[in-house]
Amino acid sequence: MKTNEFADMQKELERYFDRLWPICRSLTGNGVRESLDILSEIVPMQIHEILTGTQVLDWTIPNEWNIDEAYIITPDGKRIADMQVNNLHIVSYSTPVESKFTWEELAPHLHTLPSMPDAIPYITSYYKENWGFCISHSEWQSLPREGTYQVVIKSTLQAGHLTYGEAILPGETTEEVLFSTYICHPSMANNELSGPLVQAFLYHELAKLMHRKYTYRFLFIPETIGAIACLAQHGETWKNNLKAGFVLTCVGNEAHFQYKRSRRGNAITDRITEHILHHFAPNAVIQNFAPDGSDERQYCSPGFNLPVGSLMRTPYYQYPYYHTSLDNKEFVRFSAMEGTVLMYRKIVEALELEGYYVNTKPYGEPQLGKRKLYPDTISTEFKRDYLDTLLYLLNFSDGEHSLLDIAIKRGKPIFDFAEPLRKCMECGLIKSK
Amino acid sequence: MKTNEFADMQKELERYFDRLWPICRSLTGNGVRESLDILSEIVPMQIHEILTGTQVLDWTIPNEWNIDEAYIITPDGKRIADMQVNNLHIVSYSTPVESKFTWEELAPHLHTLPSMPDAIPYITSYYKENWGFCISHSEWQSLPREGTYQVVIKSTLQAGHLTYGEAILPGETTEEVLFSTYICHPSMANNELSGPLVQAFLYHELAKLMHRKYTYRFLFIPETIGAIACLAQHGETWKNNLKAGFVLTCVGNEAHFQYKRSRRGNAITDRITEHILHHFAPNAVIQNFAPDGSDERQYCSPGFNLPVGSLMRTPYYQYPYYHTSLDNKEFVRFSAMEGTVLMYRKIVEALELEGYYVNTKPYGEPQLGKRKLYPDTISTEFKRDYLDTLLYLLNFSDGEHSLLDIAIKRGKPIFDFAEPLRKCMECGLIKSK
Amino acid sequence: MKTNEFADMQKELERYFDRLWPICRSLTGNGVRESLDILSEIVPMQIHEILTGTQVLDWTIPNEWNIDEAYIITPDGKRIADMQVNNLHIVSYSTPVESKFTWEELAPHLHTLPSMPDAIPYITSYYKENWGFCISHSEWQSLPREGTYQVVIKSTLQAGHLTYGEAILPGETTEEVLFSTYICHPSMANNELSGPLVQAFLYHELAKLMHRKYTYRFLFIPETIGAIACLAQHGETWKNNLKAGFVLTCVGNEAHFQYKRSRRGNAITDRITEHILHHFAPNAVIQNFAPDGSDERQYCSPGFNLPVGSLMRTPYYQYPYYHTSLDNKEFVRFSAMEGTVLMYRKIVEALELEGYYVNTKPYGEPQLGKRKLYPDTISTEFKRDYLDTLLYLLNFSDGEHSLLDIAIKRGKPIFDFAEPLRKCMECGLIKSK
Repeated sequence: MKTNEFADMQKELERYFDRLWPICRSLTGNGVRESLDILSEIVPMQIHEILTGTQVLDWTIPNEWNIDEAYIITPDGKRIADMQVNNLHIVSYSTPVESKFTWEELAPHLHTLPSMPDAIPYITSYYKENWGFCISHSEWQSLPREGTYQVVIKSTLQAGHLTYGEAILPGETTEEVLFSTYICHPSMANNELSGPLVQAFLYHELAKLMHRKYTYRFLFIPETIGAIACLAQHGETWKNNLKAGFVLTCVGNEAHFQYKRSRRGNAITDRITEHILHHFAPNAVIQNFAPDGSDERQYCSPGFNLPVGSLMRTPYYQYPYYHTSLDNKEFVRFSAMEGTVLMYRKIVEALELEGYYVNTKPYGEPQLGKRKLYPDTISTEFKRDYLDTLLYLLNFSDGEHSLLDIAIKRGKPIFDFAEPLRKCMECGLIKSK
Repeated sequence: MKTNEFADMQKELERYFDRLWPICRSLTGNGVRESLDILSEIVPMQIHEILTGTQVLDWTIPNEWNIDEAYIITPDGKRIADMQVNNLHIVSYSTPVESKFTWEELAPHLHTLPSMPDAIPYITSYYKENWGFCISHSEWQSLPREGTYQVVIKSTLQAGHLTYGEAILPGETTEEVLFSTYICHPSMANNELSGPLVQAFLYHELAKLMHRKYTYRFLFIPETIGAIACLAQHGETWKNNLKAGFVLTCVGNEAHFQYKRSRRGNAITDRITEHILHHFAPNAVIQNFAPDGSDERQYCSPGFNLPVGSLMRTPYYQYPYYHTSLDNKEFVRFSAMEGTVLMYRKIVEALELEGYYVNTKPYGEPQLGKRKLYPDTISTEFKRDYLDTLLYLLNFSDGEHSLLDIAIKRGKPIFDFAEPLRKCMECGLIKSK
Repeated sequence: MKTNEFADMQKELERYFDRLWPICRSLTGNGVRESLDILSEIVPMQIHEILTGTQVLDWTIPNEWNIDEAYIITPDGKRIADMQVNNLHIVSYSTPVESKFTWEELAPHLHTLPSMPDAIPYITSYYKENWGFCISHSEWQSLPREGTYQVVIKSTLQAGHLTYGEAILPGETTEEVLFSTYICHPSMANNELSGPLVQAFLYHELAKLMHRKYTYRFLFIPETIGAIACLAQHGETWKNNLKAGFVLTCVGNEAHFQYKRSRRGNAITDRITEHILHHFAPNAVIQNFAPDGSDERQYCSPGFNLPVGSLMRTPYYQYPYYHTSLDNKEFVRFSAMEGTVLMYRKIVEALELEGYYVNTKPYGEPQLGKRKLYPDTISTEFKRDYLDTLLYLLNFSDGEHSLLDIAIKRGKPIFDFAEPLRKCMECGLIKSK
C-alpha cells in the first residue's frame, strides 16, 4: 500500500486482518517476523532483534521458538489437534516431540475448557519447558481412552532472537507520546489482532497531521518481555520525556469504550482521555489502574510509574471468549476498529492543543471591542456561547489553569477554544506560558 | 430622609423606586448625576468625576453622553419611539440626528425582539458610534414601508466626565468589605434598579451596627467601565486588604436566592455566604464563578482575583424579561428587596463574628464547673445543646479551625457560638488568635 | 482464674458481671478498689493511688467518697431509696446526713424521670457538695406529702485517694496502643460494666499473641478525672509514641457496631478500624469525632489531639435506658461482649500487620516464575485472585503506599496480603521500609 489515504479504512482493516490471521505468532520466532513485515506496509518500521540470553531488567530473553507441524494421531488413525487447522491447538513454546503415548500418559498434556465445550483454549508455556495441545472439550470427550496415540511436534526451541518493530513520527520537541501493542498472539481477533491493526492505522492518521508538538513512538512488541526489553532501553529516558502513553489492546469489538487509567490516576493521559470520552463517548467506562491486564503493568511498575493508560473496547477478562478460539472474526467489527482509531486521533489532537497560556492583560477585562474580538454589540443575537468561551479563556489563562482545566470549567470540549485561542494569540492578548 | 430608621422599609423602597424609575441613565451623563443625588438622601456619598480620555487599565474613559429628546415621525405623522414615553426607545449613546429617511434607510437602525413582540429591547452602543431606536416588534410590523420618516435625536456625545458615587462606613481595621452596584441602566427594575436600592438600604442597616471590625465601602458605578476605573485606583490595595466583596445586581424579584461564588471559590466571602444560606435560605442555589454577568468579571479578573461574589435573586440571563421593557415594577417585589437587604446584613454579622480563637487550656477539658460554665449537673434536663456548642468551641479553638469551621463541624449557625464565645473570653478560657 | 484459656468466654463474662454488679462504684473509694481487685484476676494490673488535692492539668483530685448506708424512712415508717436494694438510689458523692425533713424540705433532693416512670435515674454531684436520692417516678407519686421523713446517709467525703488500674503488654517497640475504660459507674450494664469486662478479656486475648510490634497499655480509670490524671502523666509522651488508642464504653448490647473517629479523623486508628468494619461488619456506622461522650474528649483535647477513637455498640445518648436502672443485665448480651472482644482483636491484628514495604525490583514486574511465586501457567484455573493480590502488593509497595493503602486499593482485607507478603519477603522481593 503506497498511497497516503485509505479510501475505506474498514475494508483495509479487514484485508490486513485476513492476511495476519493464519500466522502462528508467539513470543519469538518467524511468525512475529512475518507479521511485522505485513504491518510494515502501513507503518514504515524498524525491526529490532535481541539475542537470546540478553539480560533485560529482572528478566532474560528466552530461546527462540519456531514450529512447522503439530498434531496427534488417535488410536483409530484420525489426525486431531492439527495446528494447520487452528494454531491454538499447540501450546505455545511446546518442546519437540515425536512419540507414542497411552491415554493416561497423554492426558496431562491435553487442555480443554469444560465450561465452553466447543472452544479451544489458548495456552502458553513460555518460561517452563513443556508441551501440550488444546482441544475443545467436546472433542476431548469423544476420544478413545484405550489404544496408542501418536504425537508429532516439529518445533525448535533454541538460542535466537526476540523480534519487535518500532516506528517514530517526529515532532517539534523530544517529548514523547507512546503507543504500544503486542504481536505475540496467534489466531485471535479482539485480543489480539485488533491492537496491532488499530495502532498501524492510527500511525497512518497521525502521519497526516500538519504539525506535531510531540514525537510519537509506536511499538509492536511481544507482550511482557517486549515491554520489559523496551523499558530496559528507554525507561530512564521516558521518566523524563514521556508526556503520555497508551497500550492498545482489545480494541476491536462493538462495545462502549473502557479507559483504564495510568497508575498515577491523574496524568495528562488520563485527564485528556477522560475529557474526550466525556464529550464524545459519554457511555464510556473509566476504571482505575490495576496491576493486571497487559503491558501497562510494566510501564506502570513503581520504578517507572509512567503516564501510560489504555483505551479499550471490551477488555481481556470481561468477555468469556477471551483467550479462546471463539475470539474470532465473528466477534469483532471493523467499524469498531475504525472508531477506535478515530477516538485515539481525537485524544492526540486534544493533547497537541493542551498547554498553559497567559493573558497579557490580566487586570480587569481587556477591551475586546478595540481588538475586534467582541461580537457586534448592537445585536442581541450575537453568539453568547462564543463570547463566553472567549471570556473563560481570558479569565482563567493565568498560568495556573491549562487549556484543559479551562475547558473542564467551561464544560465544553477543548476544541471549542482553538479558534478564540488563535485570535487572542494573533493580537497578543494571550501568549504561551 | 433624615431619620435614622425606616418605619417601613418596603414602602421606602417603593418611594425611591418610583422617583428613580423615569430617569434616563446611561454610562455617563446627567441621568447618572440625578440618580446619585437621590440615593444620597439615604447614603451620604462622595461623588467622583473622571475626565473623558483618562486611561484606566486597558480602557479609556469615553465621551460623556447627554440627551434631551429622541423620537421618530412616521410618514403618516405619528410620533413613535419617543424616549419621553419610555427611555428604552433610544439606543444608549446614540449620536445626534435630525434628518429624513426612507424605510430602507431607517430599518438598520430599528431594533425589535421578534420572540417577545410586545417588549421593547434594551440596546447600547457605548464603544462604537452609532444611533438607533428600540421598539416593540408588533409596532414595527405596523409601520408603513413607504414614505418619509423623520428622525430626531437631540443628544451630545463629547468630552466630559464619568460619574460615580462612593460611601465608606469605617471600622476598627482597614480591612475592607466591598459592595458594588451599577447605576447605568435606564428604566428597568430587577436589572437594575434593585441593585442600587438594596445597596442603599443595606448601607443604612450597617450604619446602625454598634461595632464594626471591617471598613465597608459602597460603590454606585456605571457597569464595567466604572469597575475598571475603581480597580485602576484601588485594585492593588484591595489585593492586600479586601476581606470580602459582593456585586449587588438582580436582587429585586420574588425567587430563591442564587449565590455566584468568587473566582477563588473558597474565599471567606463564599464560605460565610454559603453557611448563612444553608441555615437561613436552604433552597438557595450555589453556582461556581463564570466570567460572565456583571462587575464580578472585573473584580475577579485574573490579575486581581479578588474575593468578590454575588448574592442575587433571579440573575441576568435566567429570565426572559432581562434587558427589556418587561423588566418593570410588575416584575419585582419590594418585600423581596427587603429580604435581600436582611440576608446581606446576616452575612455581614457572620463575617464580623468569624475569626480564629485559641483555647488557653487545651490539655484535657478545662473544668467548666469551677468557672460556672457548666449547666447544673444535678439536673438531667440541662441543655445538652448549649453544652455541646460550648465543648465544640473549646475543643476546636486550636488556632487552626476558625469559628466558621467549628460551626460547620457542629452543623449549627455561627451565631449559636456568640454567647459561649463571649463567656469563655470573659473568663479567659478563650482568646483571639 | 489461673488457666490461660477461657473455655467459654461468654460464661466467664457473665460470671464476672455478676460479681461486679452489686458493688457501689464512684469516682473514688472502696467500690473502685474492690472492682479492680476482681478484674485483677484476669488482668495482672498495677493499682495506682493519687492523693486528694493533687493538681492534674486544669483539675484537682477531689476528696475520696465512701458510703455504708443510705435510705429514707417515710412518715408511715417505710424504708425507701435504700442503696442496699439498688445503689443508684443514692446520688453519688452525697454528703453525710442524719436528719428529719418535711416533704417540702426533702423534695429538692429527690430525682425522678417522669418520662420513664419505672426507672431510677443515675445522678452524680462530684464537684459540688450536695446530697440526694434517685427513685422511680411512680414511687415518688405514691409518697405522702405530709408528715416527717427521716434521711440517713452514712457517707464520708474527705481527703484520700483516686484509684485506678493499669496493665502493660510489652512489645518489640515502645510505640504504644492504648485501651481505656472506666470503672466509676455503679450498677449499670452497657454503660458501664461492659467496658471494663470487654477490656479485661481483650487483654487476655492479646496476651496470647506470639509477637507484638507495639506495647499495649490498658487503663481502668474513673471517667474524666482519671483520663485527666493519666494525661497529666503520659500526655506529652503519648504525643510522640501513641500509635493508636481506643476508649471502651457501651460495648455490651446486641446492636451493629458504631465507630466514633478520633479528632484527627484519618489517624491510623480510624483507617484500620474502618477497614476492618468495612469487611467484617459492613452494617457498622461511622461517626465523626464530637467533643462529647466519654474520655475521648480528654485524649482528643486540642493540646494532645491523640489518635484515640471508640468502637462501641449502642453509644451513650442513643438509648433511652442510658444512665438509668433499666440499663441492666436484661439490656446486654454476653455474646455481644465476646463479639466486641474479637472485633478489637481483629483490629489489633491488622494494626500489627500494617506498615510500609518496598519492592526491591521495581523496574518492570519481577519475574515471578523463577522465584516460584507464579501459579502454574499451564493451568487456566490458577487462582487469579491470589495472583492479583501479589501483583498489587508488588506494584504499590513503593514506600508511599502502606499495606493498608494497598488493601483498600485492592478492595480486600489486609489479611489477604499476609501470605504473599511473607513469601515475597522470604525471597527478598520485598523488604520493610
